[in-house]
Amino acid sequence: MAKIIELKRSITRSNDEDAALLRSELSSKGITLINLMSSPGSGKTTLLSKTISDLDALSYTVANTPIRIAVIEADIGSDVDALRMEKLGIKALQAHTDGMCHMDAGMTRRCIESLDLTDTDLVFLENVGNLICPAEFDTGAHINMMLLSVPEGDDKPLKYPLMFASSDVLLITKTDTLDYFSFDMELCISRVMRLNPEIKIFPVSAKTGEGMDAFESYLKEVSSQTPHSCSN
Amino acid sequence: MAKIIELKRSITRSNDEDAALLRSELSSKGITLINLMSSPGSGKTTLLSKTISDLDALSYTVANTPIRIAVIEADIGSDVDALRMEKLGIKALQAHTDGMCHMDAGMTRRCIESLDLTDTDLVFLENVGNLICPAEFDTGAHINMMLLSVPEGDDKPLKYPLMFASSDVLLITKTDTLDYFSFDMELCISRVMRLNPEIKIFPVSAKTGEGMDAFESYLKEVSSQTPHSCSN
Repeated sequence: MAKIIELKRSITRSNDEDAALLRSELSSKGITLINLMSSPGSGKTTLLSKTISDLDALSYTVANTPIRIAVIEADIGSDVDALRMEKLGIKALQAHTDGMCHMDAGMTRRCIESLDLTDTDLVFLENVGNLICPAEFDTGAHINMMLLSVPEGDDKPLKYPLMFASSDVLLITKTDTLDYFSFDMELCISRVMRLNPEIKIFPVSAKTGEGMDAFESYLKEVSSQTPHSCSN
Repeated sequence: MAKIIELKRSITRSNDEDAALLRSELSSKGITLINLMSSPGSGKTTLLSKTISDLDALSYTVANTPIRIAVIEADIGSDVDALRMEKLGIKALQAHTDGMCHMDAGMTRRCIESLDLTDTDLVFLENVGNLICPAEFDTGAHINMMLLSVPEGDDKPLKYPLMFASSDVLLITKTDTLDYFSFDMELCISRVMRLNPEIKIFPVSAKTGEGMDAFESYLKEVSSQTPHSCSN
């Protein structure tokens, strides 16, 4: 059984202040928090599973120490994702958002405080599947990472601009299906770059492994740096 | 250029009362309103395009009159969907939700009042792409219809139960990709039926046309009935 935490909307003075404080506390402990956002079914959990398996298999190390990962799975009410993570032997916490469509900094803090992070370098927060509201709430993460899957279509940057504009990293997932869907990679990337010229883009397929090397090298790099206290 | 309407959140006593009133007014004019909901990229606009083209090509008629369709495209800020609809020669209105992740009854009324519905039998409201919030707000529609696309995965009923429980009709879209994704149709349908034993389910592919006949016959049937004033 995955550990489950029941959350309520945070009642705080300022989500931005709460987020900055959480980010700074995590930084001082050498922990990097990554906020993973996307539509339902874009492949967040599959990407995480593949990444965790790869990093373990390849014995990725930072200064001769493995990257130690923990995962917070946020969901309206189910625990299917945390159960998938636990099978990989990873520290996983299932957070229930009481029907809410996003995580905020207070909710994230409650999750962080429920996990034993003594030996952890990287925490992934898998946010609720939604391309709208999660973009509006700073969770306290050092890196905002989003997924867009090929079957969703190359017009999504036009329709959900805030999510693309507020992400530091974009993973274009399920690239193994490019031949099947009419998804124009070049057009999609140019639409994203117009909204956010600084964004890092990784086209990947967790199924075939294509592009995963570059993404995992990026994670290695991120883990080896002391996180900034105010990158958001 | 598509006609665009800029909406704000409705400030009303009761969304449920507003919705019931709108539904009843539309019924008295013989107009059926269908609220179409799904994740981003599940194929709402493609399904509508295919349906509208088919109905026109087949000269579907109800009591010797063609089904006359209008479409409201709700989106945070773009007008790509209404432009696609207009190309089909259909009455289309683009509604901008000012960043909001759902439509409510007041917002839907403003759209309805902005469209000339003199010669209209069926109005599709393409809600904002989101599997969470739209399920919580009665728009005044006679039928709540949702899409789940095969690439999103068969676990979505476990993760977004309210959306499946509050829909009258489920279209399982992109069935042409069933061989490519590990989507268990039988398991998915059993998960949906547990949440909502009354739901009508249509597996369809707008690409190959598979299953579209059954869906279009259903629309024909719906249009030939005087809409109920309180089906929600």
